[in-house]
Amino acid sequence: MVLLQKINSSADVKNLSREQLPQLADELRAEILRVVSANGGHLSSNLGIVELTVALHAFLDLPNDEIVWDVGHQCYAHKLLTGRQAQFDTLRQADGLSGFPKPRESAADAYVAGHSSTSVSVAVGISQAARLQGQKKRVYAVIGDGAMSGGMVYEAMNHGGDLHTPFTVILNDNEMSIAANVGAMSRYLTRLRTNRRYRRLKDRVTKFLLKRKQLGRSLYYGLEHFRDAIKYFLVRGVFFEEMGFVYLGPVDGHNIDELLETLKLAAQIDKPVLLHVITQKGKGYLPAEQNPETFHGIGSFDLATGSTKPKKPSYTDCFSARLLQLAEQDERIVAITAAMPQGTGLAAFAKKFPKRFYDVGIAEQHMVTFGGALALRGMRPVAAVYSTFLQRAYDQLMQDVCLAEAPLVLAVDRAGIVGEDGETHQGLWDIAMLRAMPNMTLMAPRDALTLPPMLDFALAAFRPVALRYPRGEAAELAEYPPQPLVLGKGEVLSQPQGAQLALLALGDMVAPALQLQKLLAAQQISAAVVDLRFAKPLDEDLIADMAQQYGRLLVMEDGVRPGGVGEGVLAILAARQLSAQVELAAFPDEFVPQAKPQQLFEKYGLTAEALYERVMQRWFA
Amino acid sequence: MVLLQKINSSADVKNLSREQLPQLADELRAEILRVVSANGGHLSSNLGIVELTVALHAFLDLPNDEIVWDVGHQCYAHKLLTGRQAQFDTLRQADGLSGFPKPRESAADAYVAGHSSTSVSVAVGISQAARLQGQKKRVYAVIGDGAMSGGMVYEAMNHGGDLHTPFTVILNDNEMSIAANVGAMSRYLTRLRTNRRYRRLKDRVTKFLLKRKQLGRSLYYGLEHFRDAIKYFLVRGVFFEEMGFVYLGPVDGHNIDELLETLKLAAQIDKPVLLHVITQKGKGYLPAEQNPETFHGIGSFDLATGSTKPKKPSYTDCFSARLLQLAEQDERIVAITAAMPQGTGLAAFAKKFPKRFYDVGIAEQHMVTFGGALALRGMRPVAAVYSTFLQRAYDQLMQDVCLAEAPLVLAVDRAGIVGEDGETHQGLWDIAMLRAMPNMTLMAPRDALTLPPMLDFALAAFRPVALRYPRGEAAELAEYPPQPLVLGKGEVLSQPQGAQLALLALGDMVAPALQLQKLLAAQQISAAVVDLRFAKPLDEDLIADMAQQYGRLLVMEDGVRPGGVGEGVLAILAARQLSAQVELAAFPDEFVPQAKPQQLFEKYGLTAEALYERVMQRWFA
Repeated sequence: MVLLQKINSSADVKNLSREQLPQLADELRAEILRVVSANGGHLSSNLGIVELTVALHAFLDLPNDEIVWDVGHQCYAHKLLTGRQAQFDTLRQADGLSGFPKPRESAADAYVAGHSSTSVSVAVGISQAARLQGQKKRVYAVIGDGAMSGGMVYEAMNHGGDLHTPFTVILNDNEMSIAANVGAMSRYLTRLRTNRRYRRLKDRVTKFLLKRKQLGRSLYYGLEHFRDAIKYFLVRGVFFEEMGFVYLGPVDGHNIDELLETLKLAAQIDKPVLLHVITQKGKGYLPAEQNPETFHGIGSFDLATGSTKPKKPSYTDCFSARLLQLAEQDERIVAITAAMPQGTGLAAFAKKFPKRFYDVGIAEQHMVTFGGALALRGMRPVAAVYSTFLQRAYDQLMQDVCLAEAPLVLAVDRAGIVGEDGETHQGLWDIAMLRAMPNMTLMAPRDALTLPPMLDFALAAFRPVALRYPRGEAAELAEYPPQPLVLGKGEVLSQPQGAQLALLALGDMVAPALQLQKLLAAQQISAAVVDLRFAKPLDEDLIADMAQQYGRLLVMEDGVRPGGVGEGVLAILAARQLSAQVELAAFPDEFVPQAKPQQLFEKYGLTAEALYERVMQRWFA
Repeated sequence: MVLLQKINSSADVKNLSREQLPQLADELRAEILRVVSANGGHLSSNLGIVELTVALHAFLDLPNDEIVWDVGHQCYAHKLLTGRQAQFDTLRQADGLSGFPKPRESAADAYVAGHSSTSVSVAVGISQAARLQGQKKRVYAVIGDGAMSGGMVYEAMNHGGDLHTPFTVILNDNEMSIAANVGAMSRYLTRLRTNRRYRRLKDRVTKFLLKRKQLGRSLYYGLEHFRDAIKYFLVRGVFFEEMGFVYLGPVDGHNIDELLETLKLAAQIDKPVLLHVITQKGKGYLPAEQNPETFHGIGSFDLATGSTKPKKPSYTDCFSARLLQLAEQDERIVAITAAMPQGTGLAAFAKKFPKRFYDVGIAEQHMVTFGGALALRGMRPVAAVYSTFLQRAYDQLMQDVCLAEAPLVLAVDRAGIVGEDGETHQGLWDIAMLRAMPNMTLMAPRDALTLPPMLDFALAAFRPVALRYPRGEAAELAEYPPQPLVLGKGEVLSQPQGAQLALLALGDMVAPALQLQKLLAAQQISAAVVDLRFAKPLDEDLIADMAQQYGRLLVMEDGVRPGGVGEGVLAILAARQLSAQVELAAFPDEFVPQAKPQQLFEKYGLTAEALYERVMQRWFA
């Protein structure tokens, strides 16, 4: 790290000679590999964008100019160049560096990121604020080709392209989002990529026109018309040019000289620019080059071989296996993902039933409405999506599924705590979100054994159903085999004689509830345990019964308290005019930072041990 | 109505001669004018689409083929042609015909609609279901140029264009959404429109190629390459063609012969088609042709003159006037709308401060993130949006505003009951939605007098703040002049000696709470009245105090119960271990149909009179 250790900000990058920049890139790559192999994180995208990051820091006047990283998980090299080398070992750990841009961590991070396709909107906002305040500022949104399928980008380009204020969208085209890319835009980019032979000519025309600008604007615009004519003839970038952007590229994203030259050209254009850069995911690390999807977001791995530790079956695995079985029996079953076939466990389905599998790209809004229409025309679609990304489709869920009464099944993965990805990725809001939607049914399995029958039930229910389950290993509560499911009915797991309170738990919180029951039993305090099973509709009769029998309820859920199941329980008691004492165990009304899941449950007092203290203190002190 | 009265389904339209179709169109127009002038409704868009609707019914094999109306408010002619003439007088009235497509009303309505930009997703879903089931079915999404700015359309075209299954997007281009259209796409459509002289040539080439299809697919595709070359040269439709669509048009949308001819051509193409139709909003009714925005969605009006009744000042008017005053004093204030300058009251701002006004098009996601970025770079943006459309931006509010701590001010208009627009437009979810978002502040003025100071407070608070207020006339509670605002603090309006219960009301529910107080007082029952002012953060101390003093609380809000303020009050009491008796007055967990607002408050027991009965029955029987 001869060069890297001297870099504290982009000013230091500018002090390096052009010849030193490739070495800096190599050092960044080595450092990223070292830390990600130990801590886990996003690897492929960060290896792919090293040269572009170096070129941006070498060329731009940061922090006056601003880089907006879309999604943001490709910001590691940027962090290493902006005074955060010393903390880089803490990447994605509790109280450590975030794996995403975070303005509160460093002023070098322009905006919070974590969800896809927001960068162009942010860049339009920043450039308009500069315009209104009379500031000179160049703003760069760096966005992957995968994120280009999100509708927000189009909304922002439609607006930003019409405002004429210059800013640059750098399209980091690595020919995939997380999985292989899909959609018409992706095919379009492929065509652009293969048209390189036209490139020199087009760039020469652009340069020629820029030089002629001094001759007066009327001539310039006269020439623009001429340029329009040949532009269409050259079949390149028309899509973006129609949106009001000057298209530059494609440029080799691993050639720093070429990048610098094109950045310079882009900076001279007095209009919004789209700069098309071609990079390779996983560049420079063979296992990642060969398996970029595996190395997209990864736990720790062996740096020499690239091999990862085998894991115990997760909820995702249970879902994946059961869906495959069901699809073999029922050819109406269709699976949908928004660019996450691997993460959501649909890859096996895609392989086995390619005609019944849809990857819509990063496009959750379309996914939900498309799924609703399939459902209302006789198919049995299952849309698998991470809880945090389902937020993108709130309105479509409300109107095109719940109001339309479309029997779409949502497999809501990564519900609850996700851990190291932090604030932007925690799945803590799906309960509040879905519980407010009329006609919605929301279920949560307590373990690996109850997930399959819940999926069966969801597909048979013929109504909008969401099934939520967390990231990671599934519990297996063999003492409590699954019982038949009835819509809106919870399950009493244990109701000992003389119980003094009832624990009402949802999904993954059932296992800690059973643990808590044991801890209390050790103090001769007997507790009933209920698996709520349905977050919506809640089992009003059972809840009322528990309140009347025991007078003390502890409601446990792995979501935020406002709008959660706990508040729903209180509303039921109020409606029935029952006055039990109720403790709500849920995440508070705040954003939950990164850390290992276990650390977070401890921090927020949601482990069996912490809840034991709480119960003892309130009721048995 | 010589012809119209004979029409019960599109089969009857087919029985008419080609020459009779323009007369049918005229009769439809007259009937729409008659009923909308009496009942109110969407006028301009329905007058503009009459010939297209007639042509679709004359050509398609409905209901096997399907028409998906985007947004849906342009479906009146469609309803009149599909067996609903007899009920047409009940349009938009309680238990009457919906102003939007509604499958439960008629099987001729393919899908629920009301929010913009969903039709392409629905059409892709329906056409894929048909493909998977081996059915022959032609699917048509009819979408206005305004709705084309919604990002979902792009997501759906990106996916649908890549699937190759034929379906048709009919772009109904009337050169405006609700207001004049904005954005790069709009300028692009203008260019297409003005390129009519190329049209004949292009259509001839397409027809030529279709005829040659019999010669074998290899030749056809060989010719396609040739076609590609000239296509680009002709500079038309490239944007859509890049998305995988064959572009046809532009066609005169008021010329039924031309429409039928082009529909026939489109039906022969074995790929997704985009058919560009030019129509005029308000066509055939001069006042609406001249003022299409005024006649977009309208109350009853005088048919002869087009004049509407003057109205008392609305909450929107109060907001509009105050924002203008503030903007004169503070040039950092910027206003943003998503295609609703008139409806949200920003038209005056736009006129006075054009450089500080942004209409982003129908693009709520971009609006919110763009606003967040402006806010974090020193501007004071105010985004005015209807409650129901804010649902589109749930994720952006959560991440790009709340997590980013962007001091964006949201003016949430049409919050609560909107009335005649029905299920798709009720603003009943913003409380539940925003209350679950950390860092959010949600306020609601009780009347015309308290709105201006709340807006001042929101802009001064320098944090994410939403201000919600309903459609229609604002109350004016002169007895209770506005008191200074403190973050998260409610206001005790009235606390009589010996009060036996407390009424906690939010926003527009304060007026009925004061009425209720009077009704109770007439029975010698004394009630305290609290204006909560803040739905988030709730005034925990005040709520606890009321619970302790009176032991009986009635919480009144005009939103759905799940996730609402009432549940928040219960959670506060539970956390403080207080056991008051609480009644929640809110809308139930269901979709609320169309009717006059007053009828809906009566139906759901949320008038002062209904709540009086409820209070008496529970506590003073």
